[in-house]
Amino acid sequence: MSRNIQVSRLDRTAVEDQDVEIVERKGIGHPDSISDGIAESVSRALSQLYLDRVGTVLHYNTDETQLVAGNAAPAFGGGEVVEPIYILIVGRATKKYDGQQLPVDSTALAAAREYLAEAIPELEYGTDVIVDVKLGEGSGDLQDVFGEEEAQVPMANDTSFGVGHAPLTETERIVHDAERELNTTYHADHPELGPDVKIMGKREGDRIDITVAAAMVDRYIDDFEAYDDAVESVREFVSDLARDRTDREVHVDVNTADDYEENSIYLTVTGTSAEQGDDGSVGRGNRANGLITPNRPMSMEATSGKNPVNHIGKIYNLLSTEIAESVAAEVDGIRDLQVRLLSQIGRPIDEPHVADAQVVTEDEVDLADVEDEIVAIVDAELDDVTGVTRRVIEGDVSTF
Amino acid sequence: MSRNIQVSRLDRTAVEDQDVEIVERKGIGHPDSISDGIAESVSRALSQLYLDRVGTVLHYNTDETQLVAGNAAPAFGGGEVVEPIYILIVGRATKKYDGQQLPVDSTALAAAREYLAEAIPELEYGTDVIVDVKLGEGSGDLQDVFGEEEAQVPMANDTSFGVGHAPLTETERIVHDAERELNTTYHADHPELGPDVKIMGKREGDRIDITVAAAMVDRYIDDFEAYDDAVESVREFVSDLARDRTDREVHVDVNTADDYEENSIYLTVTGTSAEQGDDGSVGRGNRANGLITPNRPMSMEATSGKNPVNHIGKIYNLLSTEIAESVAAEVDGIRDLQVRLLSQIGRPIDEPHVADAQVVTEDEVDLADVEDEIVAIVDAELDDVTGVTRRVIEGDVSTF
Amino acid sequence: MSRNIQVSRLDRTAVEDQDVEIVERKGIGHPDSISDGIAESVSRALSQLYLDRVGTVLHYNTDETQLVAGNAAPAFGGGEVVEPIYILIVGRATKKYDGQQLPVDSTALAAAREYLAEAIPELEYGTDVIVDVKLGEGSGDLQDVFGEEEAQVPMANDTSFGVGHAPLTETERIVHDAERELNTTYHADHPELGPDVKIMGKREGDRIDITVAAAMVDRYIDDFEAYDDAVESVREFVSDLARDRTDREVHVDVNTADDYEENSIYLTVTGTSAEQGDDGSVGRGNRANGLITPNRPMSMEATSGKNPVNHIGKIYNLLSTEIAESVAAEVDGIRDLQVRLLSQIGRPIDEPHVADAQVVTEDEVDLADVEDEIVAIVDAELDDVTGVTRRVIEGDVSTF
Amino acid sequence: MSRNIQVSRLDRTAVEDQDVEIVERKGIGHPDSISDGIAESVSRALSQLYLDRVGTVLHYNTDETQLVAGNAAPAFGGGEVVEPIYILIVGRATKKYDGQQLPVDSTALAAAREYLAEAIPELEYGTDVIVDVKLGEGSGDLQDVFGEEEAQVPMANDTSFGVGHAPLTETERIVHDAERELNTTYHADHPELGPDVKIMGKREGDRIDITVAAAMVDRYIDDFEAYDDAVESVREFVSDLARDRTDREVHVDVNTADDYEENSIYLTVTGTSAEQGDDGSVGRGNRANGLITPNRPMSMEATSGKNPVNHIGKIYNLLSTEIAESVAAEVDGIRDLQVRLLSQIGRPIDEPHVADAQVVTEDEVDLADVEDEIVAIVDAELDDVTGVTRRVIEGDVSTF
Repeated sequence: MSRNIQVSRLDRTAVEDQDVEIVERKGIGHPDSISDGIAESVSRALSQLYLDRVGTVLHYNTDETQLVAGNAAPAFGGGEVVEPIYILIVGRATKKYDGQQLPVDSTALAAAREYLAEAIPELEYGTDVIVDVKLGEGSGDLQDVFGEEEAQVPMANDTSFGVGHAPLTETERIVHDAERELNTTYHADHPELGPDVKIMGKREGDRIDITVAAAMVDRYIDDFEAYDDAVESVREFVSDLARDRTDREVHVDVNTADDYEENSIYLTVTGTSAEQGDDGSVGRGNRANGLITPNRPMSMEATSGKNPVNHIGKIYNLLSTEIAESVAAEVDGIRDLQVRLLSQIGRPIDEPHVADAQVVTEDEVDLADVEDEIVAIVDAELDDVTGVTRRVIEGDVSTF
Repeated sequence: MSRNIQVSRLDRTAVEDQDVEIVERKGIGHPDSISDGIAESVSRALSQLYLDRVGTVLHYNTDETQLVAGNAAPAFGGGEVVEPIYILIVGRATKKYDGQQLPVDSTALAAAREYLAEAIPELEYGTDVIVDVKLGEGSGDLQDVFGEEEAQVPMANDTSFGVGHAPLTETERIVHDAERELNTTYHADHPELGPDVKIMGKREGDRIDITVAAAMVDRYIDDFEAYDDAVESVREFVSDLARDRTDREVHVDVNTADDYEENSIYLTVTGTSAEQGDDGSVGRGNRANGLITPNRPMSMEATSGKNPVNHIGKIYNLLSTEIAESVAAEVDGIRDLQVRLLSQIGRPIDEPHVADAQVVTEDEVDLADVEDEIVAIVDAELDDVTGVTRRVIEGDVSTF
Repeated sequence: MSRNIQVSRLDRTAVEDQDVEIVERKGIGHPDSISDGIAESVSRALSQLYLDRVGTVLHYNTDETQLVAGNAAPAFGGGEVVEPIYILIVGRATKKYDGQQLPVDSTALAAAREYLAEAIPELEYGTDVIVDVKLGEGSGDLQDVFGEEEAQVPMANDTSFGVGHAPLTETERIVHDAERELNTTYHADHPELGPDVKIMGKREGDRIDITVAAAMVDRYIDDFEAYDDAVESVREFVSDLARDRTDREVHVDVNTADDYEENSIYLTVTGTSAEQGDDGSVGRGNRANGLITPNRPMSMEATSGKNPVNHIGKIYNLLSTEIAESVAAEVDGIRDLQVRLLSQIGRPIDEPHVADAQVVTEDEVDLADVEDEIVAIVDAELDDVTGVTRRVIEGDVSTF
Repeated sequence: MSRNIQVSRLDRTAVEDQDVEIVERKGIGHPDSISDGIAESVSRALSQLYLDRVGTVLHYNTDETQLVAGNAAPAFGGGEVVEPIYILIVGRATKKYDGQQLPVDSTALAAAREYLAEAIPELEYGTDVIVDVKLGEGSGDLQDVFGEEEAQVPMANDTSFGVGHAPLTETERIVHDAERELNTTYHADHPELGPDVKIMGKREGDRIDITVAAAMVDRYIDDFEAYDDAVESVREFVSDLARDRTDREVHVDVNTADDYEENSIYLTVTGTSAEQGDDGSVGRGNRANGLITPNRPMSMEATSGKNPVNHIGKIYNLLSTEIAESVAAEVDGIRDLQVRLLSQIGRPIDEPHVADAQVVTEDEVDLADVEDEIVAIVDAELDDVTGVTRRVIEGDVSTF
């Protein structure tokens, strides 16, 4: 078998070199990301349930979690949630197999509860948030493609499209890392910072403006002064982080909508705006690579919650990103790279209709010199297409 | 003020002396009782919330909890809930007062969670059971009748009726105590007995048949033999308890619907039939005195969940039972006693339109000799009508 | 087969001769009655669905409809519903039989919609009221007892109890007929009267007080004067109706809680208090004979929505009422009659453990003289026990 | 005031000239489009409600409708829906203003019902589909910007981004028009074609492949032959339509996943796959211009359901599309045009931070020659920014 892999010159300036660039990342505590996170954790739990009980992943799809915002009364020193957030897990799953009932509802609810406890720890389950579930009965068709036996490559049953790119621009890197670091290392020392951190990066020429909206948790903030300190601390952290990643001019703003005179600040009980008026749903926020990048082609496909065994859109979005990252990491002289995978109905998914890598090389590099290297990497990654499925089930790949 | 208290001969044979008597008690784990228990615990929590925040109990009514049964797969040694039970807390409550938001939804949910943890400990919150809430906005009218200040007696705003009786017959006592003891002292040593214990007592002449339906918890039961032992142990316990309370002939049956050959036994994952097909709602089970007694007049009014400050039906049902019990306890020679309270619109509720005590005395006692004593007790109890409200809020009175 | 039918003297004064009597009827537009009505119409529709598709009634139970009140802004000349009423149909039903999917959800929803259109015509489906459904999967066990073939008498699988009485007292008759006539003949000429009519009758000696709470429909009422006329017209109609049924002194009050000065009147958009704060559920209102009668033994069993083929509680409550009515109609000299049926597990339901008729005869009649006649009627009615099921399915019997 | 309008050369090949192009449109009956359509019709109805009652549009946002698929049993000649579709309208809205209650729930439900009746006429409301609503209480802040008085231009309160392009490529035009024509002119003569038509266009060089998935309505299709005819008829219609719009080679496939031997065809009861397993939600399908175009920059912002008065993302996405269309229509020699609008917090929205038009001109046209003309059009469109709001409220602009 020889795969249809094309390498060509990308027909535009590298994003890093364009005049204007816009990038956004919604942090894990953003209502859309909460929906993505629950959908994906439910998906992982169902895959695992099927593997444990049946030895193979059965039909399911849980990519439609809906979050309805609550109502809260935050206050310095600690306020309260007044009306709970309501989260509805939606999808289809196989509930009976070979005479055996499978606890898909309970499994989905347990996964959501566990995910929320980890991602939004200030949210008290059952009072601050109600989680409900409507999983329709899926067909019991066995998916032979990914079980205890040697994994087989599934057939494409739909025309679907995935796109990935690499390397990240400086602005993308800053936006991505700022959220990740704020929600891990920074948060470890600063419990007052909630997980609902939204980062917007805008670059015009050589000036990068980073705007952070960061939900503060009220019980760690005693007064305006403490709030102001918390905001300033985030600003400094993000400024330092950005300067480590670029030599361009960087400006960081945090919680610009605050109006101290109007007592209007970004104070929350639980660390997420979902507690007060911000609804959320799957696929409305970050793309599979964790960013929203209007300068680049994006797939509209929601990745979170989809079945990783046979949903081509999910697999191709994740795989094209992995391919792009591998090429950018291993091949010298890549300034910008875009990988597209287009499925071919009725063919194994490791034989896409089109797999093309479009490249902007550094000035001193000739595309012809790296083409073979690129083809080899794309080929190897396609060869291991079931590895994507495995990593998704094991939770090693983020989908949002 | 002189209250309209009437004492008369009860125009029938004492229930203890009737030919046929039927009594039933649904244990705290029965789906209808779960609904009652949640409704009442939500009511207590809201009363307390209002007292804490506003200093007085505001308008609310939460007497409509609906339980939708789940689906479970019990198994010797431990099975699992497959589809969760769904519980909807329904009612009205004051959500804003004097510019202050009151967390009625969160309070209701917390009360339900706490109640379930105590009453049905095997039920895992959030996966075995989903609790949702729909509390409409009640009017913010202040109920001045029960606050921090001296409690005032509220006015009756409706024609309502309460009825109580005492003393319990032997059969009533056995049915009532059997459930209470099984769910407390017996359960302490026998974790395999779930809280969904339903007891039916039938007396024909001097023979009492007690039928117990007792949900066993699967993770404490390893096989049929263990199940059989568990059933027999309950039978003996109830038999002994019954014989302590009567000299009549007693027969006890436990889980009569079991069919070992068909593998059909009363085995559950969580100790309640709500996990598998039995729905429940408020006011469908035990009356305010904890029993269902078709031989006696009963009020259809649901007591659990009603506002104890101003809901006359709730107050009169509980008060008439307390009055009957006081009279039976303090006055000698009462064989059967029925107390009825009928409200008078526009008058304080301690001045009912009718308060009548109908009595069957022991043969050797003349009603005229005890009439004054009875009137005095009724009068004193009516005088302390706000004490019922206080005891309900403090959780000292059971409503089902 | 000889049935265990007992006839004995009823051990109390006839209710008609007691000093105090209380009777209540919640009209078809009362939130509890709406729940009863929907539950029963859903039950009938499911029975019919099973008969049409499978030829026999399968397992189901739909006796738990929950109504959550809405929020309305009535106004002279026509107001509007602001938040819809929410109705949740709850129960179990067989969804698959012999490889065939049965549309139980859609059938239940269609039955509810049709029932509401008829019973509460002012209620606009989908905007004034949302109807939702949660029907669990019932077992597919075939109920052979009631199908196309000759109906067989089912076995009792539970200890259950039914009680009926006849004839109605004057007060009972007035309360019952007033609601029925108001909601039919009167309403035909007076569209301003909504179906939520609650009637309370209280008799003390020879004085009967009838209190009517009647929801007026705002779009037929232009001002206070029109409202006042509407109230007075109801009062006159009920007074006339009562005087046709008794020679006792009758007083009728309508909408006594109105306070014109406070602009507080019983004006509604849709003719039911469910639009504004009054929740409802099945089995909380009228008993199977259409009345709430604290002076008489009542079964706590909810009759509406139960499966009429095999639910003994439903069948025995309806049958005992039919028996009592037949005896009272056919046998002369019955002043009060109470019929009790108690099931015997494992026996056909036409062979109850106890079927007793307790009688108060007119002074001039000796019980011994009518005993045989009564036994014959009871026997004949038991013989036709499946007729109750048939009449319920055909909608010829009211359950609330 | 002078606006910051930039015109530059678009730094890539016109999409029409790229090697590979992918375009998709989800028809109005697709579950995601149903969600979009309901969200937007609810939005329009709320805007109108506020204008009617208060004279100005108040705060609301209804961009989160969740559709949970039903379960159906289609059959030649007419099948049935077994479990209804469940649709939850989610968002925030102002419920009280100036002491007046505003019927936002009822208005939203009415809008959804009306929209469904028009868009998916085979869907029976209340039985085939349940519509529920959870609209949180929004703040009552008055939006002075769009009322009865002269409309004012609102201030940007967020950094938001909109992007539009024109003219459509041949492939885009075919995909867009095919769905529109199938669902209007074609459907008028062919009731068997349901509204759930999904069209995928793929162009490689000069070959265009159009893949249509078209839900057929079972009651108009009597057998396989009729189904086959219906499919072929759609294929011919789309082929003709495509050939009117391009000289390239066109191949059209309809319902390629059908497998007659397995009895697996795209037959539905209601004309939408939402009846059987396909969930949907807002913002997951078509972008504001009605297409999904991975070859072009797209905003992730969901447009449908957003408040058209003050939601910059909605306004800028619609406006940038209108600007691009105006320029392409009025200026000669535009081969591809991309318009981006980026808001500037604190400035009126007609003064964006960046308004840039990136152009690929026809070979013979020099950008400098048309630059002034383009700037003038952009400026005029920005000047009329409130016109977008007005057209959205009046339903003259499609958002999906």
